[in-house]
Amino acid sequence: MSDNLKNEIGAIGKRAFDAKYLAGKLSSDDKNRILLDVAKALEESAKEIIAENDKDIEAAKENGMHEGLVDRLRLNDSRIKDMAEGIRQVAELPDPIGETIDSWKLENGLDIKKVSVPLGVIGIIYESRPNVTADAFALTFKSGNVVVLKGGSDAINSNKAITKVIREAIEKDGFNPDFIQLIPFTDRSAVNELLTLREYVDVIIPRGGAGLIRFVCENSKIPVIETGSGNCHIYIDEFADLDKALPIIVNAKTQRIGVCNAAESLVVHEKIKDKFLPLLSDAMREKKVELRADSQSISLLPEAKSATEEDFGKEYLDYILSVKTVKNVEEAIAHINKYNTGHSEAIITENQDNAKAFLEGVDAACVYVNASTRFTDGFQFGFGAEIGISTQKLHARGPMGLKELCSYKYQITGDGQVRP
Amino acid sequence: MSDNLKNEIGAIGKRAFDAKYLAGKLSSDDKNRILLDVAKALEESAKEIIAENDKDIEAAKENGMHEGLVDRLRLNDSRIKDMAEGIRQVAELPDPIGETIDSWKLENGLDIKKVSVPLGVIGIIYESRPNVTADAFALTFKSGNVVVLKGGSDAINSNKAITKVIREAIEKDGFNPDFIQLIPFTDRSAVNELLTLREYVDVIIPRGGAGLIRFVCENSKIPVIETGSGNCHIYIDEFADLDKALPIIVNAKTQRIGVCNAAESLVVHEKIKDKFLPLLSDAMREKKVELRADSQSISLLPEAKSATEEDFGKEYLDYILSVKTVKNVEEAIAHINKYNTGHSEAIITENQDNAKAFLEGVDAACVYVNASTRFTDGFQFGFGAEIGISTQKLHARGPMGLKELCSYKYQITGDGQVRP
Repeated sequence: MSDNLKNEIGAIGKRAFDAKYLAGKLSSDDKNRILLDVAKALEESAKEIIAENDKDIEAAKENGMHEGLVDRLRLNDSRIKDMAEGIRQVAELPDPIGETIDSWKLENGLDIKKVSVPLGVIGIIYESRPNVTADAFALTFKSGNVVVLKGGSDAINSNKAITKVIREAIEKDGFNPDFIQLIPFTDRSAVNELLTLREYVDVIIPRGGAGLIRFVCENSKIPVIETGSGNCHIYIDEFADLDKALPIIVNAKTQRIGVCNAAESLVVHEKIKDKFLPLLSDAMREKKVELRADSQSISLLPEAKSATEEDFGKEYLDYILSVKTVKNVEEAIAHINKYNTGHSEAIITENQDNAKAFLEGVDAACVYVNASTRFTDGFQFGFGAEIGISTQKLHARGPMGLKELCSYKYQITGDGQVRP
Repeated sequence: MSDNLKNEIGAIGKRAFDAKYLAGKLSSDDKNRILLDVAKALEESAKEIIAENDKDIEAAKENGMHEGLVDRLRLNDSRIKDMAEGIRQVAELPDPIGETIDSWKLENGLDIKKVSVPLGVIGIIYESRPNVTADAFALTFKSGNVVVLKGGSDAINSNKAITKVIREAIEKDGFNPDFIQLIPFTDRSAVNELLTLREYVDVIIPRGGAGLIRFVCENSKIPVIETGSGNCHIYIDEFADLDKALPIIVNAKTQRIGVCNAAESLVVHEKIKDKFLPLLSDAMREKKVELRADSQSISLLPEAKSATEEDFGKEYLDYILSVKTVKNVEEAIAHINKYNTGHSEAIITENQDNAKAFLEGVDAACVYVNASTRFTDGFQFGFGAEIGISTQKLHARGPMGLKELCSYKYQITGDGQVRP
């Protein structure tokens, strides 16, 4: 790693650290005004941003990037408008900072208040579309945090342009532009370097594919909030209402293929398989979904391939669905707890006891009865925003909105108390 | 690292993982009964435990361990009784699992419940006294978790004996003894190995000195809750009531020297230094506390040594206190935010504005007005127990009781909802 890269990333960390006390003290009015000004500036700078984005698009095509990915990378007037609109929506959300979460008085007279505070400096490492740059700023800034961004190399020119516009808008409002900084390097070693800045960065949030997330979790010296991969199951219980089951499966599997809350595997009670699997076969054929079935179900699914052990642990993000047969709800729960990624799991049943056993027994952020796993989303949950979906158990689990970007402190007021 | 060690620690992780679903489902009655039986078994096995502890004491003396540390390692009837009593107190605390933290209904009819659940498998790495073995079990077990312990090599025989008694008592009650397991190796490589078990262990909590905690944070592949070191400050404001200030300083500095919530540094407003420092000098002389003072304060402290930059960043855990002079509350806050470890910080003032600025501006788990930093403690806060004091911002901050050993999940109930 070059000394230059190391020094520059260190300097970025130091500037973020210096800005965090200012960010945490901003009034809601100041924050909202800055957000609205940033939104306006992005719209007004659409031409410049698109010109820089064109460079990324050209490079991507030269490098033979898949057409679908090129499309995700592309910015145009309407996408920039959406970006600005997203920022305006965040401005309208309640300020999560300074809330009294709990308070009590001790017998010795000490008053204890538990108050929400920002996390501080948040490092976000992402591979996805350039609009994440604007989203991540809006959410971290509204929650009183400072953000250090490390975007994907494919979007480097777009990300630089967006960050520049945001920083200029903040500065024009008379505040420190270091509330947002972008790491201007495209080497992987820049990620490594960011992950060592314990002194300056409070939390790292990786957003992207399973490989990136694993790399960050295993190499970070800074606490990480793991987001991401979802090997989501739907369990069709013995007592399932199939009129509910089929639309839920179609929705969870096919409404959007490449997302973490899409279903990847069906678990089917053996007593319902004769009735259910032929219907499933028809529904999946219609949606062009390939089935990969275990030995007990494959004879009822004429077009299915045979599932391997590996299939059950796989997040396909594709028109593929695995099928596993079980003897009872306990076996379904055990199977799901073995293979899932702690994201979203559903049972389809009219039996209250089985629903309860599933809700309690399945170890995942979101557990559903008779609903699609696709609802695991900050907007759907009513949080008004989402920085990602946490699949770990520390700090936040499931959709992360503004509140999940906060920590707390205890403020204790006395009049001379000492410990006996 | 030997394959044997690697395999055995892997097997311990697997057994813990297999036990965690049972642990999470235990009723409060079962948990409390097991805790009371464990407490009784420890008292009844005092003789055997002390015999094993004698081996550790003998080895420690042979290795030339400092007398104070040998004393911390020693178990006797009364200390075992205290250990049992601690477990009985945990049995009396409310069960933190299954609590509905929040609930709401979406417009589409989905019912969302946010419910407290165990973290799962908790790895605790500690250096301290053997009573931590029993404490850690009681707290993790009551909160529905499974614990894997890695104690210090000095206490290996004591820890093995205590763990054996606890496991036998659980088994006698008809439950899985793997709710608690001790890693039976004393090599440092056993810690390394534990820190790689992402597949089985949900959270690592290190308890011990700054070196151990740093090692764990930097090397763990598993999420860590950082506990521990406290470089705690007391700021004597221009408007301090010195009748409150002196007893608070004496308490925070000298009531117990070797603890993380003891004060290590005084920050003094320059307008009060002429009046305050001579009184401080007398009080510290009486308590045999050495002062290390900056250039503006040293002339008023006849016995003080000159403080170096290094002094301000130091957790002495000794009869030493550094003194720093500042021009105003803002400079005090900036100094503390530069040098503190995010633990406990206090202001002594009768001025409401300065108190407010300090409470809001200082970045630490616990911020005090006119009280001793020694109150940062799960028992003092009324939590009834404490697994440690978190100095990080993710998940839990400050004293961690039973609630802080929990995560949550969303349970969502519908009647066929799909995402539009």
